[in-house]
Amino acid sequence: MAASILNVRDLHFYLFELFDAQALTARPRYAEHSKETYLAAIETGRKIAQRYFLPIRQKVDVQQPTFDGKQVHMLPEIKPAIDAVIQSGLACPEADYEWGGMQLPAIVASVATSFLSAAGSTTLGYTSLTNANCNLIEAHGTPEQIAKWVVPMRQGRFAGTMAMTEPSAGSGLADLATSATRTEEGRYLITGNKIFISGGDHNLSENIVHLVLARIKGAPKGIKGVSLFIVPKYLVDETGAVGSRNDVSLAGLFHKMGGRGQTSCAINFGEQGGSIGYLVGEENQGIRYMFHMMNEARIMVGTSAALTALSGYQYSLDYAKERRQGRLPSSRDPLSAPVRIIEHADVRRMLLAQKAYAEGAYSLCLFGAQLADDVRTAPDEAERRSAKVLLDFLTPIIKSWPSEYGPRANSLAIQVLGGHGYTNEHPVEMFYRDNRLNSIHEGTYGVQSLDLLARKVPADNMAGYTNCISRMRDDIETATQHPALQEPAAALLAAIQVLEETTGAVLGGMQKLHIDLALANSVKYLELFGNVVVAWMWLKQGIAASAGLARDPHADDRNFYLGKLQALKYFYAYELPEIQVWKQILCDFEDAFYMAREEWF
Amino acid sequence: MAASILNVRDLHFYLFELFDAQALTARPRYAEHSKETYLAAIETGRKIAQRYFLPIRQKVDVQQPTFDGKQVHMLPEIKPAIDAVIQSGLACPEADYEWGGMQLPAIVASVATSFLSAAGSTTLGYTSLTNANCNLIEAHGTPEQIAKWVVPMRQGRFAGTMAMTEPSAGSGLADLATSATRTEEGRYLITGNKIFISGGDHNLSENIVHLVLARIKGAPKGIKGVSLFIVPKYLVDETGAVGSRNDVSLAGLFHKMGGRGQTSCAINFGEQGGSIGYLVGEENQGIRYMFHMMNEARIMVGTSAALTALSGYQYSLDYAKERRQGRLPSSRDPLSAPVRIIEHADVRRMLLAQKAYAEGAYSLCLFGAQLADDVRTAPDEAERRSAKVLLDFLTPIIKSWPSEYGPRANSLAIQVLGGHGYTNEHPVEMFYRDNRLNSIHEGTYGVQSLDLLARKVPADNMAGYTNCISRMRDDIETATQHPALQEPAAALLAAIQVLEETTGAVLGGMQKLHIDLALANSVKYLELFGNVVVAWMWLKQGIAASAGLARDPHADDRNFYLGKLQALKYFYAYELPEIQVWKQILCDFEDAFYMAREEWF
Repeated sequence: MAASILNVRDLHFYLFELFDAQALTARPRYAEHSKETYLAAIETGRKIAQRYFLPIRQKVDVQQPTFDGKQVHMLPEIKPAIDAVIQSGLACPEADYEWGGMQLPAIVASVATSFLSAAGSTTLGYTSLTNANCNLIEAHGTPEQIAKWVVPMRQGRFAGTMAMTEPSAGSGLADLATSATRTEEGRYLITGNKIFISGGDHNLSENIVHLVLARIKGAPKGIKGVSLFIVPKYLVDETGAVGSRNDVSLAGLFHKMGGRGQTSCAINFGEQGGSIGYLVGEENQGIRYMFHMMNEARIMVGTSAALTALSGYQYSLDYAKERRQGRLPSSRDPLSAPVRIIEHADVRRMLLAQKAYAEGAYSLCLFGAQLADDVRTAPDEAERRSAKVLLDFLTPIIKSWPSEYGPRANSLAIQVLGGHGYTNEHPVEMFYRDNRLNSIHEGTYGVQSLDLLARKVPADNMAGYTNCISRMRDDIETATQHPALQEPAAALLAAIQVLEETTGAVLGGMQKLHIDLALANSVKYLELFGNVVVAWMWLKQGIAASAGLARDPHADDRNFYLGKLQALKYFYAYELPEIQVWKQILCDFEDAFYMAREEWF
Repeated sequence: MAASILNVRDLHFYLFELFDAQALTARPRYAEHSKETYLAAIETGRKIAQRYFLPIRQKVDVQQPTFDGKQVHMLPEIKPAIDAVIQSGLACPEADYEWGGMQLPAIVASVATSFLSAAGSTTLGYTSLTNANCNLIEAHGTPEQIAKWVVPMRQGRFAGTMAMTEPSAGSGLADLATSATRTEEGRYLITGNKIFISGGDHNLSENIVHLVLARIKGAPKGIKGVSLFIVPKYLVDETGAVGSRNDVSLAGLFHKMGGRGQTSCAINFGEQGGSIGYLVGEENQGIRYMFHMMNEARIMVGTSAALTALSGYQYSLDYAKERRQGRLPSSRDPLSAPVRIIEHADVRRMLLAQKAYAEGAYSLCLFGAQLADDVRTAPDEAERRSAKVLLDFLTPIIKSWPSEYGPRANSLAIQVLGGHGYTNEHPVEMFYRDNRLNSIHEGTYGVQSLDLLARKVPADNMAGYTNCISRMRDDIETATQHPALQEPAAALLAAIQVLEETTGAVLGGMQKLHIDLALANSVKYLELFGNVVVAWMWLKQGIAASAGLARDPHADDRNFYLGKLQALKYFYAYELPEIQVWKQILCDFEDAFYMAREEWF
């Protein structure tokens, strides 16, 4: 079967019709860009994915990295794949030209790397984490730190990680036990154990730069006493030359269900007395700095989940168009030839649901990227601030919705292929395994739901919430100008009403009820808000598709737009109505599990 | 962490409180049984699971069977595990004493093998498929065939399979191409390729007895021309001695995402001119006979899905009681010790949902087993007929609901363990992979939904449907006598109303609309009916738990019953209300995917 990774037409739709990425070239930072340079970057990503990533997709999964007690052994083909990404500039597509980046807007960078992520999300993980590490040090480090660590990382000679989780403190950053002791030279000696460090060790680069959260001796307890350190695998002298090993050692690799292209490491810092670390920014501000990287990582997680969903959708679609099996219920003739399975309504259900989930999720991630671009380069200060408020607000949804619906899409892709989808003849079972991590790492689903409800909604006089609702109303206004969008526009308006009533009730409960009870259904709130936001993204796509249809396009484009409208119809008929059920649960402060006592289980 | 596989108290609840399995000992077939013999059988299963299955659980998954082109190599520890099952009688617990069985009722047999299934569902697969194969030949074969094939299978010397699927006809049995030619000796020469044959080859037995669907030359097209054949791997002479190889060869093994204890094989029949096969029953009746085994296999699939869900629930529950992490939202003191994660409301959500899914699913499977017992041994003819009607009707739901909600439960088990759950430090990721097959094999989710809506509901003047609704109403009547069950009883009554209205609308549509459109949302109908049936099972459990509480039990039992009532409460508050959304879709004949044209994707 011909292996198509993603639908290029669809990617162009997001960039040039749904979001006006071309308009960004009017901003000074992107002045040298044009539609042509965007397309060239996307084509570069596609070619590298096709040439380096796709051929090793299965091997990366089957031949997991191993650790012989001394060093990590990886599939040799991973390095050339990563090197190709680095040489193309796609390892840091948003970075300044002077760092070897492409200085692309975030939204274009996302699309330019989409083929790589879809064909090998965890192989791409090495460069994208390194990129996020650089961004943090650029924002909060000293010029010396930037010169020493960021420059070689941008060049692809060094790689970067973030090291937060500890064996006895998973999501609980307040309980981090890794310690840092200040030395006379103004450096720190770091001692502690970290786990689940993605890309924490490998043989792909000259050095690995860990960003490590640790507590300086005597610092306050809790998250207010946590600082951030640069802790390299190898020490580097003033000339930038890589020298002796730091006291950083790999304790072991985790064997994961999926995402096997990227090592997940347990690392011991300071077993020989203390690994040398360099403080980033000020003492006790580590959590704040780390969230610079973390927020970026959360959007990366959502994006990866969405692209893995898109990849499975595309694969199962290609399969369904070729594979022949069975007959329609209306067929009375056992002598007739079996139909292609896309002719079965239930197979189209599984395809259209995947389309609605995957394209809904990815459009949301790109909306987030567009906001990130506005935060950085919108000409108007108020516009920049508004974008920041909304992006902060939406981050838990951008992280969570694709991570929840992405695996559902991948499960449907398996189902389309039937028994074949359950075997490694096809990649869909790998997508399903890969995608399952996304609702865990960088803050679990539950953690995101508390972030949304307890922090982001009330924050700053509900500024993010209000901003979000108000933008939705603007788009509803636009949608009502298209005859084909009257129904979904009205439905989204009604959904906003549901959201408003629910939010009012829950915030009221947070005042009146025990806070643990008031927050107990936070996951349902995240689900409700998520479905409304994705319905909004579908309405946005409906507007763009309607505009496209109004231009009387050629047949292929016409079909493409009709497909968008059909996925919108599906989402509004089958998915959006669920919010009524969740509203009831939330407004009633349903307490079935809250009241469930441990001894009852 | 101590590895508890299943909760014994819960299993006893099903057998002795929810369903009165002890009453079955009044029937002649089970006259030699008593509560003590039941408990002994269960304890035997538990011990074998603990001693043979649990220690190799991970190895079975990691060290998949391999095929060197000549023979299959399997983890050596699998054979002693299976031998222990055979020697205990648990390979065929329902079979007659004279065959080496335990002559147990089906419901007790299910519980007696539950630990084995929960600790190694695919290892147990070898004996349970062999058992189902024997049951088919006993029902439809000749005395000679029984003597020649069933006896050695019952003795554990031979193993059995069913070989239906072909590369170009997955769910489409009408398109089977394997052919059979009658020889002068009255035997048949079979030629064709079969795939996904579970246990199709291995080194665990002296011989393998395939039940093969094939088309006799000149037979009618479609399913009316399919016959069933016994095709052994090795030929057997009149004395029962195993002789030369039949023309049956292993073409290869599939590498599956899960369920790796059991080989999944591609087998070529008749590459050297024709494998010798023996007709079962009459010509062209193969599909009917195969459904004898298939219906049993469908219930086995549901049961395995339910037990894998229970196993993950138990594991994550044990973990949540020990693991400490984070603090409650109400805690303002960062110096306080982290709580055990079961203290977090959201973790209790994930545990209670698992409990509701897994125990709801398993109680449904055991209800099916009880019906099977009544079909076989109820003293009254009308009772036997009524049980048969209801069991036939419920089979697609017993197969599907656990297969759909079991993986959801297993996903929640992973989530409770967080990042750790995604690694092979713990078995929950394996459960998740293992369970994913269950909505595919023995008839996919879509196939089951069409079976329910297009066949089972209208069949025989809606006899199964009516029987089901009427039994639900009886239990609602009983439930209203318990003060604690007023609410769920009323809710189930309302749910029946939803079901009735929906069924009326859909059946009406099947008359008036194009049949392909009328059936397009069949999966939603299956979901709706499934949730109502499982709500019913929870009401049944609520009745038994209320009765238990009324006996003023000791503290442990009291907590156990309160846990049942809490899971009931959860299911009615969080899961049952979804049927309103699905009703709307069904009654509106929502056509989003039905109308979606291929070229729009």
